[in-house]
Amino acid sequence: MGQEKKLVEAITPMDQDFAQWYTDVVKKAELVDYSGVRGCMVLRPLGYAIWENIQKGLDARFKATGHENVYMPMFIPESLLQKEKDHVEGFAPEVAWVTHGGEEELTERLCVRPTSETVFCDHYARVIHSYRDLPKLYNQWCSVVRWEKTTRPFLRTMEFLWQEGHTMHETAEEAIEETERMLNVYADFCEEELAIPVIKGQKTDKEKFAGAEATYTIEALMHDGKALQSGTSHYFGDGFARAFGITFTGRDNTLQTPYETSWGMSTRIIGAIIMTHGDDSGLVLPPAIAPTQVIIVPIAQHKPGVLDKAAQLEERLQTVCRVKTDASEQSPGWKFAEYEMKGVPLRLEIGPKDIEKDQCVVVRRDNREKIFVPLSELEQRIPELLKAVHDGMYQKALDRRESMTYSVAGGMDEMIEAAATRPGFIKAAWCGDLACEEALKEKAGVTSRCMPFEQEHISDTCVCCGKPAKKTVIWGKAY
Amino acid sequence: MGQEKKLVEAITPMDQDFAQWYTDVVKKAELVDYSGVRGCMVLRPLGYAIWENIQKGLDARFKATGHENVYMPMFIPESLLQKEKDHVEGFAPEVAWVTHGGEEELTERLCVRPTSETVFCDHYARVIHSYRDLPKLYNQWCSVVRWEKTTRPFLRTMEFLWQEGHTMHETAEEAIEETERMLNVYADFCEEELAIPVIKGQKTDKEKFAGAEATYTIEALMHDGKALQSGTSHYFGDGFARAFGITFTGRDNTLQTPYETSWGMSTRIIGAIIMTHGDDSGLVLPPAIAPTQVIIVPIAQHKPGVLDKAAQLEERLQTVCRVKTDASEQSPGWKFAEYEMKGVPLRLEIGPKDIEKDQCVVVRRDNREKIFVPLSELEQRIPELLKAVHDGMYQKALDRRESMTYSVAGGMDEMIEAAATRPGFIKAAWCGDLACEEALKEKAGVTSRCMPFEQEHISDTCVCCGKPAKKTVIWGKAY
Ligand SMILES: [Zn+2]
Ligand SMILES: [Zn+2]
Repeated sequence: MGQEKKLVEAITPMDQDFAQWYTDVVKKAELVDYSGVRGCMVLRPLGYAIWENIQKGLDARFKATGHENVYMPMFIPESLLQKEKDHVEGFAPEVAWVTHGGEEELTERLCVRPTSETVFCDHYARVIHSYRDLPKLYNQWCSVVRWEKTTRPFLRTMEFLWQEGHTMHETAEEAIEETERMLNVYADFCEEELAIPVIKGQKTDKEKFAGAEATYTIEALMHDGKALQSGTSHYFGDGFARAFGITFTGRDNTLQTPYETSWGMSTRIIGAIIMTHGDDSGLVLPPAIAPTQVIIVPIAQHKPGVLDKAAQLEERLQTVCRVKTDASEQSPGWKFAEYEMKGVPLRLEIGPKDIEKDQCVVVRRDNREKIFVPLSELEQRIPELLKAVHDGMYQKALDRRESMTYSVAGGMDEMIEAAATRPGFIKAAWCGDLACEEALKEKAGVTSRCMPFEQEHISDTCVCCGKPAKKTVIWGKAY
Repeated sequence: MGQEKKLVEAITPMDQDFAQWYTDVVKKAELVDYSGVRGCMVLRPLGYAIWENIQKGLDARFKATGHENVYMPMFIPESLLQKEKDHVEGFAPEVAWVTHGGEEELTERLCVRPTSETVFCDHYARVIHSYRDLPKLYNQWCSVVRWEKTTRPFLRTMEFLWQEGHTMHETAEEAIEETERMLNVYADFCEEELAIPVIKGQKTDKEKFAGAEATYTIEALMHDGKALQSGTSHYFGDGFARAFGITFTGRDNTLQTPYETSWGMSTRIIGAIIMTHGDDSGLVLPPAIAPTQVIIVPIAQHKPGVLDKAAQLEERLQTVCRVKTDASEQSPGWKFAEYEMKGVPLRLEIGPKDIEKDQCVVVRRDNREKIFVPLSELEQRIPELLKAVHDGMYQKALDRRESMTYSVAGGMDEMIEAAATRPGFIKAAWCGDLACEEALKEKAGVTSRCMPFEQEHISDTCVCCGKPAKKTVIWGKAY
């Protein structure tokens, strides 16, 4: 019991200090370890296994929508980064520079990719010649580096893992369609596999990606009422293509410029999983990406037949889910706390009394419900319960988001009051002026999360200046 | 026919200029594109898809042997790299240095990982406390950078993709066992999935990894008689663990130092696939890792029913293999050349005459054998034929290696003569002295590839100095 107590005590309750709770969870659940390099994290086996499952889920969706994976060099010569003006302005202040190779000083310094639009364009310029070469639907899985001043595991790290899709199209319409398609892929993935409800919308000009004409985003609400941008999809028009001299012979035999998109999701999404679903006992993992979906805990395992029965159940369950047994010498209580901390969706307890009754006890991680399952129904009930955990997690997150979303139809006083007292999403009308966006940031401390695709009428006038409103915007504090 | 001719003409025959043949194949088969950074390559969809299949095959074997994946930071502080003396001497001359982050100069420069022993050890020092924490069986998939002077796609590039396993064990015996186990995993993978026969052995001290006590290797013989080191597994003893202060409380309650291994396989293996199996028509891909295993080419596809039948066959074959149909407007001849260049193991031709006879024509890429297959037997025959292609490729490679392996029982004159006139592996006895190894390099132009585990008696005396021999070594010229 000594270690069990320690484990439970070690987590700061969410309500007491959310930031500390988060830090405690990532450490105690053994998702990451801090490394010797400031702001770079070690992804430990559980953290990386979650990422692997996210990769599998996303990659299958990318391939089903016709995309191919490639790998581009991680170094970008400074001159290449500078080819698109807005892009270099956005990224140059936060890149790592390689200046020496072996014992020699380089004639041109190389940055470690913060994102790969430039290297993809450099390649596209060499391989796109005719409309027959389009569309190019490429994606890459890699790590990128951004020299951040303050960092937090998953949420903001100097190096992080992600995927970046980069596509080229014959027409603007086709590229815009792709931008939307991939945002929908992200949204579906978040809802169907991560049990995270998201709001789809467009970023304001102030918040869009460096060099993009339009940035679409999915925004999720965390437990503490802060927003987390969970995936973005950008439409570039033909800006990069022109900057990189990419042309193709069109169907009408004229020389044309293609239209580009890019879209990305990163290990940041693991931060969203933690802060959407976690509780004071630790992680709560969505079944679709949980490395272990069911943990079998034998009760009174020294008694004859218990471990054999546990092994038998594990073998049966292998065919329907990812299952493990903990037959170590730790107490059942310690194991309960351990696998709750690690977010395993279902715990299956099997002891002498259960064996007698030909049943087992299944405990849901999401709501702690205890269910007696006849052993004969195991292969059918466990997948059903995993589905129920997913649905329960999604509904709980959706209910919380709805209870933390407010409309502000009045002016700045109401907005400042709402932002100060009610954590969550605030819907308010906006005139479209940068000045008002900046004023909202300065006075109310909120930024525009997105202009939701599903526009709702809140007010005819801008919450800040009172001029006619152009868009309803979701405002909030963000990670 | 214009483009078909161009395609065929563009490849330099192997016998005429092997190096140029290799360069032609990697370009024409669209495996890679050169990038704007010297020595860094772009892995195009076919090149990357091959790597993905290699990853899948290896990763399944790693997990089956109890390993877990993790991800370590790509940056290594200079002070960390310097902790193990032999290691830093081996790698410091060939690393890329990051000296600036954003606008600031770093107080300590960071190298981009050339390999990750040091960061793994840094992490292990923090997480290994008791014998209960051992073994640690970690692997990571990532890219690494080595500042090479001359580079060639896949064979030697500044940045390359690989996996690196790093494990820690309670005892030396257990670590040595792991080193051998992983070498066997590589060897089995090469033979069973890549159809590449390999020789397993130990590296001499001169050729072993920087910081290792012993390096085991698998060596394959390329078409031109040069050797290619295809995977290595290292035993470190407790050297790194001592340098990094990694200790654990043992079963007897004393403080002990763990024993370490590391092992890696990289995109270099794709070079081995090309140079073991390729021919004057291009790539020949082993079925297990071929992204497309069967390409369906409709003949006289404008005739009624042909494309429908092709689609029907594709749908049926989806259940047993990776299959695609090329229904583009290019001629069948162009398509034949194109998919031969890209190494697709089986071509399935279906035209009006075949449909009439309820059969199709299947052509093997490895030996061009043409087989008439009744359509009713398709799902059974295609997997059999893929197996036959694999076996045929393996046997052909093995026969070639055997026909290019020689024993030299005499002295240096015989060795120099053999090395100069017969490309391939040369078996000769060695006294164990570095001086002889260096003399063989200087005078005969060969290096020791390995001391094979299966020792064969060639001579009682060293091929170089005539002193008593300790080992039979395989010598050769290497990539
Ligand atoms: Zn306004
Ligand atoms: Zn000698």
